[in-house]
Amino acid sequence: MPSRYRAKFINSLSGYKSANLIGTKNINGQSNLAIFSSVVHLGASPALIGFIMRPDNGSRHTLDNILQTEQYTINQVSADFYQAAHQTSARYPEDENEFVTCNLSEHYIDGFKAPFVEESRLKYAVKLKEIMPITINKTQLIIGEIVHVICEGSAIQADGYIDIESLNTVTASGLDSYHTSQRLARLSYAKPNIASAELKLDATTEQLIFPSDANKAQ
Amino acid sequence: MPSRYRAKFINSLSGYKSANLIGTKNINGQSNLAIFSSVVHLGASPALIGFIMRPDNGSRHTLDNILQTEQYTINQVSADFYQAAHQTSARYPEDENEFVTCNLSEHYIDGFKAPFVEESRLKYAVKLKEIMPITINKTQLIIGEIVHVICEGSAIQADGYIDIESLNTVTASGLDSYHTSQRLARLSYAKPNIASAELKLDATTEQLIFPSDANKAQ
Repeated sequence: MPSRYRAKFINSLSGYKSANLIGTKNINGQSNLAIFSSVVHLGASPALIGFIMRPDNGSRHTLDNILQTEQYTINQVSADFYQAAHQTSARYPEDENEFVTCNLSEHYIDGFKAPFVEESRLKYAVKLKEIMPITINKTQLIIGEIVHVICEGSAIQADGYIDIESLNTVTASGLDSYHTSQRLARLSYAKPNIASAELKLDATTEQLIFPSDANKAQ
Repeated sequence: MPSRYRAKFINSLSGYKSANLIGTKNINGQSNLAIFSSVVHLGASPALIGFIMRPDNGSRHTLDNILQTEQYTINQVSADFYQAAHQTSARYPEDENEFVTCNLSEHYIDGFKAPFVEESRLKYAVKLKEIMPITINKTQLIIGEIVHVICEGSAIQADGYIDIESLNTVTASGLDSYHTSQRLARLSYAKPNIASAELKLDATTEQLIFPSDANKAQ
């Protein structure tokens, strides 16, 4: 396959991807913002999150800044600003601030130096824990611990699930396609010999009804 | 946070996830099928794909089988069978075949022992390349090379992008929510000082029109 065709084809195989902006600052106070589609959940306790950094091509400002400060933010991309988020993937010079160029706003919290994306409706502060080299293709897995979460409260359901669809969070496919979502269902925890049922919100209490609880109540 | 609340909350933070079934066989010919939401693109050349294996809890049939045969299949989950796919996450005994129990069909190709999911519209054969321990939380990154792709031809566009939305591929959020997607747009490769434009299909030729090509033609 020709190289560009191959890149688009292989990038489509993993399925839908997360779309997140990673915000950093270098030791001189210069902000940087870049979109990543490889952010992946690693564990809940401790709360660890990973992403894949591509091979060193001589200008990886996000990684340089993370190495300098050991701090970064991850900001979910929503439909309201996905074009601006995509534009951060252009190769801007190191001294150009993608927040300004791409028309997004910096947001800060006390005690954390890396910039958040004001427009993002679900975002969190991350401290670098480990960089694992993937020698086979010279990529790296960047592992961080989530230390502070900023999320619109209305999206957090009674059981802890965050309804990211209600936040208009987008998903990506391939190298350049962006999508919103339509929920099919939330399914109950799967057990052998019991078919999973849909979880539903009780209209009166706005609490989630779990099929197992419903069974208990009967 | 209570443990279950925390698991659902933290699992929601990474954004939308891929939903894939991983098919394996042990050396005795016993098939296994399990759903994973952590499959991630690692690189196009060579074509590498990764997924996260949770800490050893004494019954990880997928990993045991991959270690025995060094072969597995990854099968995108579509809306037509997402409930069956979710049900594979129940803790079945090692000698129970999730294909049979969850009402999915095995499919084989010559020269590859691991079973594909017949119902999946985009699936591929993978050979194990490396298992990287993530010591910080005792998970593992399983890295494989894609050696054979089975995909409905109508979904493959002229530039190599696979329209997984047309295949009804689902995306997952949190631990238990499944979604279909609605495309906002495909955006052109981002360059500094040029706003990204939408890529569009030419209605006559069914070829993608790239803004840069359109400019060249003028």
